[in-house]
Amino acid sequence: MKDDGLQSVLIIGTGLLGASLGLALSAAHIRCYLQDSSPTALALARDMGAGTELFEGAQPQLVVVCVPPDVAGTCVGAALKAYPHAVVTDVASVKQTVLQEVQESGADTSRYVGSHPMAGRERSGPDAADRDLFTGRPWIVVPHEKTDGRAKKMVQEVIDLVGAVARELDASEHDRAVALVSHVPQLAASLLAARLEGADPAALSLAGQGLRDTTRIARSNPALWAAIISANSAAVAGVLEQLRADLDYLIEGLQAEKPAGLDVPGRARTVATVVSSGNAGVDRIPGKHGGAPKRYTELSVLVPDEPGELGRLFSEMGEENINLEDLSLEHSAGAALGIARLQVLPANATPLARALTKRGWQVV
Amino acid sequence: MKDDGLQSVLIIGTGLLGASLGLALSAAHIRCYLQDSSPTALALARDMGAGTELFEGAQPQLVVVCVPPDVAGTCVGAALKAYPHAVVTDVASVKQTVLQEVQESGADTSRYVGSHPMAGRERSGPDAADRDLFTGRPWIVVPHEKTDGRAKKMVQEVIDLVGAVARELDASEHDRAVALVSHVPQLAASLLAARLEGADPAALSLAGQGLRDTTRIARSNPALWAAIISANSAAVAGVLEQLRADLDYLIEGLQAEKPAGLDVPGRARTVATVVSSGNAGVDRIPGKHGGAPKRYTELSVLVPDEPGELGRLFSEMGEENINLEDLSLEHSAGAALGIARLQVLPANATPLARALTKRGWQVV
Repeated sequence: MKDDGLQSVLIIGTGLLGASLGLALSAAHIRCYLQDSSPTALALARDMGAGTELFEGAQPQLVVVCVPPDVAGTCVGAALKAYPHAVVTDVASVKQTVLQEVQESGADTSRYVGSHPMAGRERSGPDAADRDLFTGRPWIVVPHEKTDGRAKKMVQEVIDLVGAVARELDASEHDRAVALVSHVPQLAASLLAARLEGADPAALSLAGQGLRDTTRIARSNPALWAAIISANSAAVAGVLEQLRADLDYLIEGLQAEKPAGLDVPGRARTVATVVSSGNAGVDRIPGKHGGAPKRYTELSVLVPDEPGELGRLFSEMGEENINLEDLSLEHSAGAALGIARLQVLPANATPLARALTKRGWQVV
Repeated sequence: MKDDGLQSVLIIGTGLLGASLGLALSAAHIRCYLQDSSPTALALARDMGAGTELFEGAQPQLVVVCVPPDVAGTCVGAALKAYPHAVVTDVASVKQTVLQEVQESGADTSRYVGSHPMAGRERSGPDAADRDLFTGRPWIVVPHEKTDGRAKKMVQEVIDLVGAVARELDASEHDRAVALVSHVPQLAASLLAARLEGADPAALSLAGQGLRDTTRIARSNPALWAAIISANSAAVAGVLEQLRADLDYLIEGLQAEKPAGLDVPGRARTVATVVSSGNAGVDRIPGKHGGAPKRYTELSVLVPDEPGELGRLFSEMGEENINLEDLSLEHSAGAALGIARLQVLPANATPLARALTKRGWQVV
């Protein structure tokens, strides 16, 4: 037990996020009380070590509401009333609708601060919980105009204890930001992947890394995304409308007849404009460490498709004392070789290529 | 020099593909003649070892036209006339417009077979050439109704010599297939990335792996894609129109008011429908080896961001004799840890997780 600061937390909702938070905070010697409308989910989280069942009269200093976004606001309002001295936060991935519901509840909102840990995994439920789920991930803190300093400080303490990285945004900034960097990319991947539903298997057999990358997140859970996106529908629809305007421009350009007397056909000009805008947009995504975008140099290395070969490649990179900034693996249908695409700092590219070639690797 | 089969090839156009082909075929002891409208590109390819300059009176058995798609058809027609005994192929990434131009040239089309090696890299030009460019990649053979057996056999021989994997499609199947698996994904990534052009840096700092994956190919060359897509505009516009119909449905659903007396709002139902269709589509992408889609199990492992750590991870996987089917790296802004997402066969997941944990890795 710590002498000052945070000592006890009530976690309402013991799904993936709630149970993971319970595991992480319990490991940091915070007393965690658990509550869930499902006795099974509650028992499972408790047995995993996420905390103990809430008892009548317990007075947690902090309540963390970890329920789906469509019920988070109501649940926060109820918690503010049930625990009149506690700070209350929630972890819903949309923030404006939740804040509005909290304000409408008539509770004391000075003790409420919203938050959104940007962590998750493909599985859900307490059985997928992990105490390292939040390690190294952004955790957005969303205060409103009446949030008091104690509430912000207590949420910051949780973020520090679980090893996440705090960012502060207001609710409307948050919702517009996640619409752009998370919700719309999810929907774009789904719309693109949906085109494959009735595709010829011969066409699908030509699928390369580009198609795989652009559709990877299309494997997501429909019910979960329905709840998230419908709670952020205005911001999402706004971005999608801009995307549709560009799509209209593109389709119109592709269907235009070649204008007489022009060397550059209208079609090609339209496509070049769209691809150039994409170049400019993707260049604005920050690099690995969240600083200004960095340009890495890519090296492609042929890797035999056998256990241990990738290990040998990366061990030898380590022996050369060169750090990998990013990588992807590429496979080709029917081939016994993969291609590892290594992103390294430009200054490291030539020495690494030389060293790997010397060690017998095929750098292509 | 080989006694029978292919002995000499003329490569017209010594950019990335032509020069790489020259390197690969020269390494297989095929005599390669080179031709390019740019004396600089020609000299560069020759000096790299891709072949020798074409001389007056040379009689190549095969001509491979490696020029951009907007001039490929004219160039193939001219080659069929200039070399009346040679087989002629091209490597353009669209096939119907090229075939149509060849047929309109009045040349003997029985000696023409189209082809499309699905290989490339982010750099272009002969200086980016590599003899392993085609290794393990699909190479689509596109015969037409008058193509004779000798032409198909000779192109197959080239494919075998460079280590590519042959697939056969007709021109219209080819163009519809690449529209779906390559051209539309490229444009979807560009349209999505274009939304980031004017985005708030605070929003961009929240970018995660999903956004990075969906926009990675948006870094492509605008001029190159303008030539490719405008030569396949009908097939591409067809797929884009279907995508727009789904997008219209989605936007309309998001903007609908919650219908009275229904528990499930229209918005959530619309989103769930779109995400479910995406699930069904992405499941149809074949697995790593081009066979039926396989389900891999994902393990996520925390990796300290230091040289050699990834190497140690993959070496230890090799020691456990477990093969990696796919992987991706995930970084979080401001964190000193990365997460390696390992895809392994389901039967290997539990033994691997246990072994890695025992060796001190954090499997999350």
